[in-house]
Amino acid sequence: MTTVHPTMRAVVFDGKLRFVKDHPVPAVPPGWARIRVQKAGICKTDMEIIRGYKGFKGILGHEFIGVVEQCDDPNRIDKRVAGEINVACGSCEWCANGMGRHCPNRTVLGILNHNGCMADYCILPIGNLIEIPAALADDRAILVEPLSAACEILEQVELHGSEQVVVLGDGRLGILCAWVLLTALSDVTLVGHHPEKLDLAKWRQLKTVLSAADLHPGAHIVVDATGSGPGINEAMALSRPRGTIVLKTTVAFQGDVNLAPIVVNELTVLGSRCGQFRDGIRMLESYPDMPIERLITARYPIDQAVAAFEQATQSDALKVLLEM
Amino acid sequence: MTTVHPTMRAVVFDGKLRFVKDHPVPAVPPGWARIRVQKAGICKTDMEIIRGYKGFKGILGHEFIGVVEQCDDPNRIDKRVAGEINVACGSCEWCANGMGRHCPNRTVLGILNHNGCMADYCILPIGNLIEIPAALADDRAILVEPLSAACEILEQVELHGSEQVVVLGDGRLGILCAWVLLTALSDVTLVGHHPEKLDLAKWRQLKTVLSAADLHPGAHIVVDATGSGPGINEAMALSRPRGTIVLKTTVAFQGDVNLAPIVVNELTVLGSRCGQFRDGIRMLESYPDMPIERLITARYPIDQAVAAFEQATQSDALKVLLEM
Repeated sequence: MTTVHPTMRAVVFDGKLRFVKDHPVPAVPPGWARIRVQKAGICKTDMEIIRGYKGFKGILGHEFIGVVEQCDDPNRIDKRVAGEINVACGSCEWCANGMGRHCPNRTVLGILNHNGCMADYCILPIGNLIEIPAALADDRAILVEPLSAACEILEQVELHGSEQVVVLGDGRLGILCAWVLLTALSDVTLVGHHPEKLDLAKWRQLKTVLSAADLHPGAHIVVDATGSGPGINEAMALSRPRGTIVLKTTVAFQGDVNLAPIVVNELTVLGSRCGQFRDGIRMLESYPDMPIERLITARYPIDQAVAAFEQATQSDALKVLLEM
Repeated sequence: MTTVHPTMRAVVFDGKLRFVKDHPVPAVPPGWARIRVQKAGICKTDMEIIRGYKGFKGILGHEFIGVVEQCDDPNRIDKRVAGEINVACGSCEWCANGMGRHCPNRTVLGILNHNGCMADYCILPIGNLIEIPAALADDRAILVEPLSAACEILEQVELHGSEQVVVLGDGRLGILCAWVLLTALSDVTLVGHHPEKLDLAKWRQLKTVLSAADLHPGAHIVVDATGSGPGINEAMALSRPRGTIVLKTTVAFQGDVNLAPIVVNELTVLGSRCGQFRDGIRMLESYPDMPIERLITARYPIDQAVAAFEQATQSDALKVLLEM
């Protein structure tokens, strides 16, 4: 006698990127929810994973919106949700202090010991789910994860409104950081090498330049969202003494970095990772004119995931979506 | 007819370290003072300069105590003083905001476009002079400059008393940082590779270890005072998520540094350079039991400066003094 397990479509990395039709549907542990995924975004971290970063193997993906299909709490069923990607152990010192996002035993959706969301279904603890307000369109809600990461800067840096800020990198994270900063400041300059992306980034009083060499040094805050080695050097060169540099990408800076300017100019360097989804959602509700949909470069059905990843690697791509 | 200019003894770097007997005594511009130097300390920066760092040429030295011999203000004459080493232009935006130590046009005593204090006389603006309280012995006062640099950490990092702190480096700056932190915290560990220096560093509840590998990661604050490339990597490894790393040395970190942990663990990295002399003096007055004289390894008359520098490069040397 054989038991028939239900299967689902999924985008898997097992040394190679593959679309599979017959992945087992995940079981739902007590206190967890199974979400029927509607859309998933391809993020730079996904691209790093398929190059071997962190040795993750399994279903990819951590940016999604979907509908709760099964969980203990009947109030959650059929709700449209996004999900906090870090699954904390709940019992260590970090968790006890409300810092579960830094729990040393955590798993991370689609990144660390936890199958991701590029599939028909994914599972997360109920506490990780964030309901998406009905007024928020899917194409805005799907960008809540990177937008929340950008919002984290506002939590970490105290702004008074008169600061000069430079954002390095015209990828989606750089553009989102610039937009988030424009809600608090008027003097924000985005530096990028892609005229079409800089054009697309125009919102409010944003200034854009194609080369940092065109800027006078002296920024109060420099955000590096380049994900490239020279970013930190350029950031140090553009910052004023006692300025703040925000590192906004986990891509390894490796190689020749001379950190002496940090000491000589008494710079503050802040590592800034993900943010709180509620901040991203609140930002979208407060700024309905923030043109976040512009960042969606293309959409692919899930079975064309390999082509979607291919497009996401193109230099003109911002956000490529998979639709289930 | 020839005018006879007064001359003085001085320690000069002009591509080579030399003691000279016949350096011209500096003239005193309006608003400046000429100080008869009594003692000067050899600092790591001096050692970097004689290896070609920053291309400085001229009289070395920026740590001193001395007596004011000539200036416009009669109240200053014959006073025992130390001196703030940065000479700001007084007219730029930084100076206007009380941040003259970061003035882009500044000169720096014995480091940048300004003859230093390893001589019978040096000159500084009157505003740079800090009178040394009569109760403070010369051998304590001469260490005010590095002690003030250590005190800067207390200005930059908010401490609550329960933090675990690790200081990397058992040189004079590392030891001073550890002592300064011990005035605010009880859990301070100094990591160094020299048993005799660690022994000498013992004060209050200081813990010492010979290898960072003996420590559990998880420090709230890690101070790097090693002046070596691996310091920043070690600091990142010892810090807890959301921890603070203080970089306390201008020696260039160059080479393979992977800064990704700053982002992943949302670390704060603070560059910390010099401090305010009043803070160092206040510290010495408040903690008469701080055994700062222990850091004086040797004293040399100024004409034996070359031998003094030689000793200062030895791994067991902490502070080597020149006496005029």
